[in-house]
Amino acid sequence: MKKEISREDRLIEVIRRTIGVAPPEVVLGIGDDAAVIAAPPRGSLLLITTDMLVEDVHFRAGLISPFQLGWKSLAVNLSDVAAMGGVPVAAVVSLGLKKNTGGDFIRGFFRGMKTLAGKFDVSVVGGDVVRSRDIVVAVAVAGKTTGGTFVTRTGARPGDAVLVTGTLGDSAAGLAILEGRVENPGGRAGARLVACHLKPVPRIREGIAAARTRAVSAMMDISDGIAADLPRLARASRVGFRIHENLLPLSPHLLKFAGKTGVPPSRLALTGGEDYELLICAAHSEWRRVARAITRAADTTVTLIGEILRPEDGGTLVDRTGKRRRLPRPAFEHFRRQGG
Amino acid sequence: MKKEISREDRLIEVIRRTIGVAPPEVVLGIGDDAAVIAAPPRGSLLLITTDMLVEDVHFRAGLISPFQLGWKSLAVNLSDVAAMGGVPVAAVVSLGLKKNTGGDFIRGFFRGMKTLAGKFDVSVVGGDVVRSRDIVVAVAVAGKTTGGTFVTRTGARPGDAVLVTGTLGDSAAGLAILEGRVENPGGRAGARLVACHLKPVPRIREGIAAARTRAVSAMMDISDGIAADLPRLARASRVGFRIHENLLPLSPHLLKFAGKTGVPPSRLALTGGEDYELLICAAHSEWRRVARAITRAADTTVTLIGEILRPEDGGTLVDRTGKRRRLPRPAFEHFRRQGG
Repeated sequence: MKKEISREDRLIEVIRRTIGVAPPEVVLGIGDDAAVIAAPPRGSLLLITTDMLVEDVHFRAGLISPFQLGWKSLAVNLSDVAAMGGVPVAAVVSLGLKKNTGGDFIRGFFRGMKTLAGKFDVSVVGGDVVRSRDIVVAVAVAGKTTGGTFVTRTGARPGDAVLVTGTLGDSAAGLAILEGRVENPGGRAGARLVACHLKPVPRIREGIAAARTRAVSAMMDISDGIAADLPRLARASRVGFRIHENLLPLSPHLLKFAGKTGVPPSRLALTGGEDYELLICAAHSEWRRVARAITRAADTTVTLIGEILRPEDGGTLVDRTGKRRRLPRPAFEHFRRQGG
Repeated sequence: MKKEISREDRLIEVIRRTIGVAPPEVVLGIGDDAAVIAAPPRGSLLLITTDMLVEDVHFRAGLISPFQLGWKSLAVNLSDVAAMGGVPVAAVVSLGLKKNTGGDFIRGFFRGMKTLAGKFDVSVVGGDVVRSRDIVVAVAVAGKTTGGTFVTRTGARPGDAVLVTGTLGDSAAGLAILEGRVENPGGRAGARLVACHLKPVPRIREGIAAARTRAVSAMMDISDGIAADLPRLARASRVGFRIHENLLPLSPHLLKFAGKTGVPPSRLALTGGEDYELLICAAHSEWRRVARAITRAADTTVTLIGEILRPEDGGTLVDRTGKRRRLPRPAFEHFRRQGG
């Protein structure tokens, strides 16, 4: 038979070759109507989430490489699984590409996805490639709970401590550098901030460790900045909160950036978004145990930044002078990421 | 607390209200970082698939209602699960919407999704809503096998019968009517053809019944037309095939359409696409049993249209005069749907 293989079939072959051999829990990978994977073990529950990234809304093609885009598209979904305390298992991706996008883009994209997937034993098992006017990436991830345990946004109680993993604001600073809006502080600091934006590392091990303590009352990932995401958690839990500007964890890179550019670092930490750190609530008597468990499992710092209050107390920020203020508005009020 | 709820949070609330109460196997539905559902029972495997629909590539916003778009976006994914002989369980959707898209669109879209989901006990458990220049819908569906059984595209053997469910070409005729390219045959025929295009019904019960016979060697859904999809199955199975133009199942509606418009119905049946019927291969001695099992389970006709040959025999169409011909090229050689 003369083989008239269409463009879509050729692209799927490129993807299949880039993804390579599937691990044993993948019964059937890319190339059929659906992928087949081993079901979660008895007692586990199935997690599922999806996120979409659109060119010129969530990224600019000139500022992110195909590898980085593949990495990041998976990272934002893995971050949602991390926020439940779950273990990601498999990912599928729907990819809208422009007319003339070539095999190089596809190879780079799937190499990036595969590299991050490999770090967390996630398998990329399927996909759809279609044509579109802008690049659009929609990833869906299936995962499992460890035992039957998972953590939602809804369980925070007045008196709980509010914790965050890692540092905040680095990704926003990296984006400002990438877009040329500010001076690059240069050297390691600049490169590190840009990497935080382009290749965020989802807090999978941190989320699992947090859930295993069984002391976490609520958890979510910080995708739009604390100033947008903490009020979401508070609404879901029907509580108020107070956080302290001088407790926000800032990296030395961000402080160097702030020194050079004059941009207030806590504004980036509050409203910058795309940190993909975890926001965690736990009873005040338990927070040190939770923080230690996370640091032991993943070598990630955990910082107490405030406390959960009664709903009638509202949401406030205590600034460096001790004044109680309303939270600043998010830097970008577009309608974008949400709970999957 | 003054509640500054963002546009995205309001939209998620609209979705949550439209989707309504989740069935018991949904442990946690829309609104958190990920959805949580019951794991498939012991012995089952997990299926996962995704498909993306892009405005002006796969649909025109003026020719499909939000309800129909929601229905169709889910249908094309359920069709992939059907093609494995699987049982769909849960769906998540990433939705890219234009700046000024309102709540009415979202409500219509999710009502359409939910209406189809309800027919097959599928739960819509999560989503992401983002801004984009064109409407983009990416759905991912998780399902399970019945027992450990599933059917791929790769097992067809020389001598197998080639079967299809239902009728072919109706959807393509419906699209031609919708786009005003041809005269509407009017009455029931026109409406039926248009409905086939806008609200395809995935062949879930048919796929399950086929898989349960354990006599099916290969199966896939027909999304790009037999002329594109049968060669795909043949390549995956490393076989050749021969199909007969005068055996192609054509609906009375399509024949009426053809009579009025002069469009050859078998061309639509071969190359039209978007039929979402199942293409099934089974040993010749077994095909009647397979057909009966499907018809009994789902009241859907099954038609023998040809046979699987050795790879060196290539792929041919026997036309109405008995001449062997190469298959016509697909009507649209865009790069679009593929195996999840």
